[in-house]
Amino acid sequence: MENLMDRLIEKIKAYNNPTVIGVDTRYELVPECVKEKYSKDIYGMCNAMLEYSKALIDATYDIIPAVKLQSAYFEMYGVEGIKLYKEMIEYCKSKDMIVMADVKRGDIGSTSSGYSKAYLGKNLINEKEEAIFDVDFATVNPYMGSDCVNPFIEDCRKYDKGIFILVKTSNKSSGELQDLKTEDGEEIYKKVARLVNSWGEELIGKNGYSNVSAVVGATYPKQLEELRKLMPHSYFLIPGYGAQRRKSRRYSIRI
Amino acid sequence: MENLMDRLIEKIKAYNNPTVIGVDTRYELVPECVKEKYSKDIYGMCNAMLEYSKALIDATYDIIPAVKLQSAYFEMYGVEGIKLYKEMIEYCKSKDMIVMADVKRGDIGSTSSGYSKAYLGKNLINEKEEAIFDVDFATVNPYMGSDCVNPFIEDCRKYDKGIFILVKTSNKSSGELQDLKTEDGEEIYKKVARLVNSWGEELIGKNGYSNVSAVVGATYPKQLEELRKLMPHSYFLIPGYGAQRRKSRRYSIRI
Repeated sequence: MENLMDRLIEKIKAYNNPTVIGVDTRYELVPECVKEKYSKDIYGMCNAMLEYSKALIDATYDIIPAVKLQSAYFEMYGVEGIKLYKEMIEYCKSKDMIVMADVKRGDIGSTSSGYSKAYLGKNLINEKEEAIFDVDFATVNPYMGSDCVNPFIEDCRKYDKGIFILVKTSNKSSGELQDLKTEDGEEIYKKVARLVNSWGEELIGKNGYSNVSAVVGATYPKQLEELRKLMPHSYFLIPGYGAQRRKSRRYSIRI
Repeated sequence: MENLMDRLIEKIKAYNNPTVIGVDTRYELVPECVKEKYSKDIYGMCNAMLEYSKALIDATYDIIPAVKLQSAYFEMYGVEGIKLYKEMIEYCKSKDMIVMADVKRGDIGSTSSGYSKAYLGKNLINEKEEAIFDVDFATVNPYMGSDCVNPFIEDCRKYDKGIFILVKTSNKSSGELQDLKTEDGEEIYKKVARLVNSWGEELIGKNGYSNVSAVVGATYPKQLEELRKLMPHSYFLIPGYGAQRRKSRRYSIRI
């Protein structure tokens, strides 16, 4: 059966580009010529960030198949920032991009289910099931285990959505926990990789890739090889691979 | 020097109550008599949840020192839900409660800094430093290590705020990662406990407790004892200790 990953792969092939553009809204990085059109209060700031972020999308949507919106940079502008988040999701979707909410959520079962409803699933509004932020992918933190991840997987199955689970992250201190060796000599991140592989087993599409994918930092190339073996059916979202620019960071999704 | 934990301890002593009330906004749990006053659309739903949640606070703020607001249940109502989150934070603060944002955030350094600005620190709005959601505590996920946690700790220091870091969570599958034994025979959650202890060292108040605290599930009492030894300066937020009710869940903070 065709799944989200098949559609993503199709898009990557059509564009001949496995890049994800990361749009981080930070007011200080908006050019003066945009800023000066708006007031300096929170409403003007968000309008300036909206205009600039839309311009970034306009300049890239026909060459880059997917966009990653980092929630933190929107949350730090409060309620207006979340409004902007929603507007940017809708704008990217109107340009037919695959949209990833980089939210790194995760909690105990019923609460994870709330997060999943927010980003991937639906919630009951006005007595009807309604999508809320309605993205294609969300990122998920695995520290709490299966019953944290399962509600997301349920919605992946139900609505053909996807998740990228943190396996080995690209930051300097990622090794403090992720590289710890367990009793059998295998590192924690590999244990997580095995979990990701089992979580994704039932959601594999016609190209052989599951809607359950992995975040794997490119700062550690040797690990990429090992992890590919442990997760043969998972796409990798690879921060740090490709150019990192001031306003928009590039990520890569690779088979 | 007096810190946030000293103020929390003072409040716990004055109320003779170490309980945290958890307010989870779920529309289906709002009584009919409240619901019927409002429309069924998202605005009416949020107004009904606001009225009921305020009533829960009105009934408890003079006997319970702290409130925990679970972000997932607000996010699942989208932008209006976040507006409600902000309103509830402000209402709880107006009642002089200690407010915890249960957001379980965490990311690489610069992005964690965005999250910390949103909940604990300040962001530049209208050319002035301004608090955004402005709670006392946020919960943090440690999977990405020190450079994920440090921006939060910086704001804890700067603004006398606090964090509760997930150490051993109360859910069934928490052991899948957290209980894995490392090469030296010690479990991952104990390694995290050691990190929490070191992260909190410089933020200890006059009662001997750090603004860097730990989430430890009460479902595993033996572990509580071991963790107390590893984190002598951390308060514990203990989900599952005390009554769990339909609408409001109780948590306990214990020395």
